[in-house]
Amino acid sequence: MRNSTRSEVDPFIVMDVMEAARKAEEAGRRIIHMEVGQPSTGAPVAAQQALVRALENDALGYTVALGIPALRERIARMYGEWYNVDLDPGRVVVTSGSSGAFLLAFTALFDSGDRVGIGAPGYPSYRQILHALGLTPVDIETAAENRLQPVPSDLSGLDLAGLMVASPANPTGTMLNRDAMAALIGATQEVGAAFISDEIYHGIEYEAKAVTALELTNDAYVINSFSKYFSMTGWRVGWMVVPEDHVRVVERLAQNMFICAPHASQVAALAAMDCEEELQANLAVYARNRQLMLEGLPKAGFSKIAPPDGAFYVYADVSELTQDSRAFAAEILEKAGVAVTPGLDFDPVRGATTLRFSYARSTADIEEGLSRLRSFMENR
Amino acid sequence: MRNSTRSEVDPFIVMDVMEAARKAEEAGRRIIHMEVGQPSTGAPVAAQQALVRALENDALGYTVALGIPALRERIARMYGEWYNVDLDPGRVVVTSGSSGAFLLAFTALFDSGDRVGIGAPGYPSYRQILHALGLTPVDIETAAENRLQPVPSDLSGLDLAGLMVASPANPTGTMLNRDAMAALIGATQEVGAAFISDEIYHGIEYEAKAVTALELTNDAYVINSFSKYFSMTGWRVGWMVVPEDHVRVVERLAQNMFICAPHASQVAALAAMDCEEELQANLAVYARNRQLMLEGLPKAGFSKIAPPDGAFYVYADVSELTQDSRAFAAEILEKAGVAVTPGLDFDPVRGATTLRFSYARSTADIEEGLSRLRSFMENR
Repeated sequence: MRNSTRSEVDPFIVMDVMEAARKAEEAGRRIIHMEVGQPSTGAPVAAQQALVRALENDALGYTVALGIPALRERIARMYGEWYNVDLDPGRVVVTSGSSGAFLLAFTALFDSGDRVGIGAPGYPSYRQILHALGLTPVDIETAAENRLQPVPSDLSGLDLAGLMVASPANPTGTMLNRDAMAALIGATQEVGAAFISDEIYHGIEYEAKAVTALELTNDAYVINSFSKYFSMTGWRVGWMVVPEDHVRVVERLAQNMFICAPHASQVAALAAMDCEEELQANLAVYARNRQLMLEGLPKAGFSKIAPPDGAFYVYADVSELTQDSRAFAAEILEKAGVAVTPGLDFDPVRGATTLRFSYARSTADIEEGLSRLRSFMENR
Repeated sequence: MRNSTRSEVDPFIVMDVMEAARKAEEAGRRIIHMEVGQPSTGAPVAAQQALVRALENDALGYTVALGIPALRERIARMYGEWYNVDLDPGRVVVTSGSSGAFLLAFTALFDSGDRVGIGAPGYPSYRQILHALGLTPVDIETAAENRLQPVPSDLSGLDLAGLMVASPANPTGTMLNRDAMAALIGATQEVGAAFISDEIYHGIEYEAKAVTALELTNDAYVINSFSKYFSMTGWRVGWMVVPEDHVRVVERLAQNMFICAPHASQVAALAAMDCEEELQANLAVYARNRQLMLEGLPKAGFSKIAPPDGAFYVYADVSELTQDSRAFAAEILEKAGVAVTPGLDFDPVRGATTLRFSYARSTADIEEGLSRLRSFMENR
């Protein structure tokens, strides 16, 4: 049977690492997982309890497409608490994870063939989703001196209909400060391009608070999720804030493309927003792990790293060690028993000489992983 | 800020009815809901219990993109139990509702501008999702003598890249029997068009068992859901069966576009598949309601109805009563206190003279609704 050309998306290189890790574990070996992009913790306890209560009282049928009103209101209130931004709940769209938000945003904003700028390195699915929707992803090679984030001069001549940024970013953990974000917003507005800010790692930041695009403009799409700070990856619930005059368009798209985000997940998400103590305890683990990584990785020989302002990743330039990050990751798995992600998933060109280390798991695992990496590098 | 042309999707006409019904209820009036497309029952009790147990033992993080292996296996086994079809679990893709399956199927199969045939009347979101993806929906005006289903001769000259059918269909409840389905599969194969079978209402059928396309061919996409027979609308979990050589393509798309279907919903869905007693009790209510509708609607003056083989809808030709189904639905709501869906949502042309009545709610509601409809028509 026929297949479309838009369905030809690249495989995730890390899948090979994960499959090899799985086989090693099946064979009885203990593998340290520094490749995973999700917390090991589940949803906050009170979030789970709220769902159990809802199961007793509610058929949990479809919600309205924009999401449970109380959840939209609570999300809007969070923008006051976190950023001192006064946000109309009517602009909040509850989505099926940030994945659902990307699909809605790209569909609401772009037509077939439109060019959308994404930073390289960056989250691989931006590129693949754009391609799958018949749009044209445009890689912007970012520079180390710009914290591996795009800057306005990168955009000239690209003829973009939109720009997607992420702060803190995956795989680098680097952030755009207020001036850097404002400059990019200005540059896109000058050329009539849409500005989309992926803020999925907000809340997981260490030295400075992450800046939301909503502090600077109402004329942007802002995407966030309950997956990371709120520790609810598998629940597939996130949100998007859109300009006021885009709400109706996004609502109609959401009605047709999704009907609604999972009802049970929306109930749990609402309760999760009041679980600060548990979530801050998770964050303290990431902060401790990050400190261990910042000490341990250079000692092991991985010293060229992007400034890990937020998220739970360290992105390392390993060009002095390899020109083939895929083979290097396979070697690290085989010899050290540590799974890491080859940079090729995030940057199809320069990723051949980079690795991403995740520190989302337990501190004990991070300590063991760093010790293994150090021995491996000493004996290499 | 810019908007795409692909985001210009039609509003649901029924939304006006629902909003007017909500206002009437706020004002203290009791409204009978014959406009809703979902069961009033929740997920089966054992499904809820399975989720509560899982919450205690599992962080419910991301699952693999194709879905929990045990769920894929159980779904494949169901094809043996229901249809005597031997299905490889490797061909089953767990999706974020049938909505997610439509997005994956259309993306895997079609490129920008490709023409995809859909029956009119039909589920409105087919048209809107195709449009939102930059594809071209092609309405096929079906005939009453063909049970409002497309037939091969309808396809000639349409230059289709694909055909989407639904059996039992929404809004009509009519089914394609084995010969009719085989004829359509043959006609699409002759012109190299993809065949997509929406089987979301399977299990809710009354006089004959619905036929799955998989009884006739492996060269089709088959879409189903836990929303209707399994009574889990708000959980957003469904599935799709694809040709063996399409699994990898769909897997990569799903990894990028969805990551996975909601984990909690997958756990509940697996348990729901062994809740036959409870689900058959739900079905007995629909069967009783259907009988009441088949007797009561003609008595009230709605006698030109499509053969309601399955689902929980009756689609009525009201051309002798109105040329404006929207105004007629508003009148029925106002005077009879019964909410119904104007046909315009399902058929932009001929829907001006049709209505859809749903009988998914309680039997008491159906009785009261029919009594109100009869009084209303007598006094009209």
